[in-house]
Amino acid sequence: MSGHLAVVGLGPGDARCLTPEADEALAAAQALYGYGPYLDRVAGRPNQTRHASDNRQERARAIAALAHAAQGGRVAVVSGGDPGVFAMAAAVCEEIEAGPESFRALDLVIVPGITAMLAVAARIGAPLGHDFCALSLSDNLKAWSLIERRLDAAAGAGFVLALYNPVSRARPWQFGRAIELLRRHLPQSTPVVFGRAIGREEERVSVTTLAAADGATADMATLVIVGSRETRVIARPGKSPLVYTPRVAAEVSA
Amino acid sequence: MSGHLAVVGLGPGDARCLTPEADEALAAAQALYGYGPYLDRVAGRPNQTRHASDNRQERARAIAALAHAAQGGRVAVVSGGDPGVFAMAAAVCEEIEAGPESFRALDLVIVPGITAMLAVAARIGAPLGHDFCALSLSDNLKAWSLIERRLDAAAGAGFVLALYNPVSRARPWQFGRAIELLRRHLPQSTPVVFGRAIGREEERVSVTTLAAADGATADMATLVIVGSRETRVIARPGKSPLVYTPRVAAEVSA
Repeated sequence: MSGHLAVVGLGPGDARCLTPEADEALAAAQALYGYGPYLDRVAGRPNQTRHASDNRQERARAIAALAHAAQGGRVAVVSGGDPGVFAMAAAVCEEIEAGPESFRALDLVIVPGITAMLAVAARIGAPLGHDFCALSLSDNLKAWSLIERRLDAAAGAGFVLALYNPVSRARPWQFGRAIELLRRHLPQSTPVVFGRAIGREEERVSVTTLAAADGATADMATLVIVGSRETRVIARPGKSPLVYTPRVAAEVSA
Repeated sequence: MSGHLAVVGLGPGDARCLTPEADEALAAAQALYGYGPYLDRVAGRPNQTRHASDNRQERARAIAALAHAAQGGRVAVVSGGDPGVFAMAAAVCEEIEAGPESFRALDLVIVPGITAMLAVAARIGAPLGHDFCALSLSDNLKAWSLIERRLDAAAGAGFVLALYNPVSRARPWQFGRAIELLRRHLPQSTPVVFGRAIGREEERVSVTTLAAADGATADMATLVIVGSRETRVIARPGKSPLVYTPRVAAEVSA
C-alpha cells in the first residue's frame, strides 16, 4: 500500500496563474494540507478533507501530510508561489529524510508554480533579465551574519537581488539593515521594486530608488527586487515605468 | 491607435504547465513572433499570423513585434520558460528604450511562466529550497571573466547555482571551465543535477557529483543545478533519488 503525495504550487494567487497540472493535482487529492489562506484559494471538491495550519507550522504540516499519504492516501500539500522556492518542498524533503522508511516509499510529485519574483518582475518589465540571486531575509533558520555575507557577495558581483520574506512582526529591523548594506555597494539611484499579492485585489507594485527604499513599504508577503548597476528605468508617458536589466553586462568594477 | 504587445512564457514545454493567462494571451493575438520550435508548441488560431525566427535573432524579433504592435496590432512574442529569465522580456525592453516614442505608448503585458530551473528542481526534489543564484554561462553578451567572478562570489557565499545556457556549439569549453572553478569552492561530493525538456518526450534528468560532472551531459537546452555544501541526496529504494537543500543553513566557512 503506497500512498501519493503532491506538493503543489498555487502561483501568486490569481487562478489565471495556476497551471493545469496544479489544478489536476488538487482535484485528484483526497486530502489537502496547507497554510489556511492558501487553502482558501483552492476550490473544494466533494469528499476532500482540508487540514489548515499556521504559517510557521511547516514541519508539523509536512509530517502530518506524509503520515497521511503513508497510510495509503492521496494527499496534496499546497504552497504559495513555487513549492521549491522558500516554500513547502524543502520542508517535505527534510521530513522524508528524517522520517520512517514508509516516507521514502511514497510516490512524490512536486508541481511547480509561478514564484513571487517572476510574478513581480513580469508586472514591472524585466528586472531579472540578467544574472540574479534569490535570497530570504529571514534569520529564523540561518544566522544574520550569513545573510549579510550573501548580500555582500551578490551585490558586489553585480547580481540583481530578489529578496523574499523581507519583514515580519518578529523581524522588524532586518530589511532596513539589508538596504543600508546594499547602499555601500550600489549607486543611490539603483531601482528597487516592491511587489505583493500579484493578480489579487490587494495587488501593490511600486518602484523607488535604493536611496529612498523604506522598510515600511514591505511586509511578509512583499517581494523586493533590488537592481544591479545595469538595471534601468524607462519612463512612459501616461503609463507606469518599466524596470529592466539588459542582457549585455559591462564588467563590474571592484 | 495604440497597439498591444504580450510577451508570453510557455513554461518548459508541457501544455499542462502553460498557465490559463498565457493561453488566453496567445489566443487573443493576431500575430505570433518567436523562435520556430517555441511557435511550434502553440496551437494555431484562425486569422492568426506566425513569424518564426532563429534562436539568436532576439533583437530583430523584438523590433519586428514592437513595430507590428505600434501599427495597432495585437501581437504576442512567445518565449520558452519565463520571458523574464534569460529570455525575450529584456530584449523587448531594450528595444522599447532604444526605439521610437510609439514603442513606449504600447500596451505591454508580460505573462510569466515556469522557468527551467523551477521545472528541473521540481522533478528532482527541492535543490533550490534555500538561497540560490541564476546565472547564464553564455559569454556572448558579457565577458567570461565576469562569469568567473560571479561563480566565485556565489559558490563562495553558499548559494546554490542554477546555470542557464551551459554549452553551445560556439561555446564548447565554458561549462567545463565553470565546473573546474566550482571544484575549488565545493566538496567533490556536491550534488549536480542536469535537466532538459521537462514534461516533453525527450525529457532527461540526471544527478551526479561535482567530481563526476561532465560537459558532455549538457547542451544549450540543459539547465544545470550545482548544490551548495548543504545540499543533500536522499536514496529511495526502487525510486529515483531526491536532491534538496534544507531550509536551515549552517554558517559558511571562509
